[in-house]
Amino acid sequence: MAPTSETLTAERILEATEEVLRRHGPAKATVVDVARALGVSHGSVYRHFRTKAALREAVTKRWLDRTSEALSGIAAADRDAESRLRDWLAALFDAKRRKAGDDPELFATYSVLTAESGTAVGEHLADLTAQLTRIIEAGTADGTFAAADPATAAGAVFQATVRFHDPCHAREWERPAAEAEFAAVVDLIVRGLRA
Amino acid sequence: MAPTSETLTAERILEATEEVLRRHGPAKATVVDVARALGVSHGSVYRHFRTKAALREAVTKRWLDRTSEALSGIAAADRDAESRLRDWLAALFDAKRRKAGDDPELFATYSVLTAESGTAVGEHLADLTAQLTRIIEAGTADGTFAAADPATAAGAVFQATVRFHDPCHAREWERPAAEAEFAAVVDLIVRGLRA
Repeated sequence: MAPTSETLTAERILEATEEVLRRHGPAKATVVDVARALGVSHGSVYRHFRTKAALREAVTKRWLDRTSEALSGIAAADRDAESRLRDWLAALFDAKRRKAGDDPELFATYSVLTAESGTAVGEHLADLTAQLTRIIEAGTADGTFAAADPATAAGAVFQATVRFHDPCHAREWERPAAEAEFAAVVDLIVRGLRA
Repeated sequence: MAPTSETLTAERILEATEEVLRRHGPAKATVVDVARALGVSHGSVYRHFRTKAALREAVTKRWLDRTSEALSGIAAADRDAESRLRDWLAALFDAKRRKAGDDPELFATYSVLTAESGTAVGEHLADLTAQLTRIIEAGTADGTFAAADPATAAGAVFQATVRFHDPCHAREWERPAAEAEFAAVVDLIVRGLRA
């Protein structure tokens, strides 16, 4: 139990919520469990998150943001667009695969939460597609890529690689062929974007 | 109940099995239910399919074969490779979308059966990828496509379009944007294959 003298921040509540979700699973975890883990009243938690649904949405957003923040550095890097695109797609696959492989219970928990999420997932997908759009715009500006509409092309790239980032394909990520299959899809896509 | 005077063929058993699966669901359907629907003893069914697992595997194969047979005509047609590829991918998406939309219970049933299938799904995927390989080989031979290894390229095309044929994405197929998203992915892929 954490000492109550520490200031109760939203971030501390979200950390505790993730731990409670990991321990109890998404079906059983309650706000009272979270409050107990923090040594505070459930009223204190509700002052930061007005409903249980809002708390679940916020912890889902935090989990998804961890991936998009790591990728945004690659998207914004000062390097040629094709390398950035390849690195970005590899980093996305790698992040998802590690999340699924390193902590399967937490991954299963977040698969349930993302399925029930109203806006966090939509915003996450929009954020990732916007990062891809910036890379493709840069490549189109310097003549590497030829995309009539970079946003449409970014959507197509994201969907053509869905097998390597959508949780419904997680079982396939550990197969020995996965790395070669990923490389073949990325090569096909990069060729499709080239001027 | 069908008249018992008709010869009991494997095809009649599989037809009845599909109907029993649709009615009872994959968890509850039994060989006795199938025999009852046909007005025969369960021993008669076992003479054609030695185990319940073999019967389920065979009915799954029959369901999958319906899709691959429709597609094989497109793959073998005497037309330019790019049109064949586009038509083949559109026909696959269309077949899956109709299966999911027209009879959701049966689609859910077969989603369970394909997940438990040992070999039928693997053979089905190999068959579809072989059809794609033939199209890409033809396109490479006539200079439309440039694929160093048509089989690898076929695998990449199949996986890059997984969002439009894997049942785990079925909920996304009815969204208004699905058709435009499919078109953007196919355009990207065709550009990636071109010489």
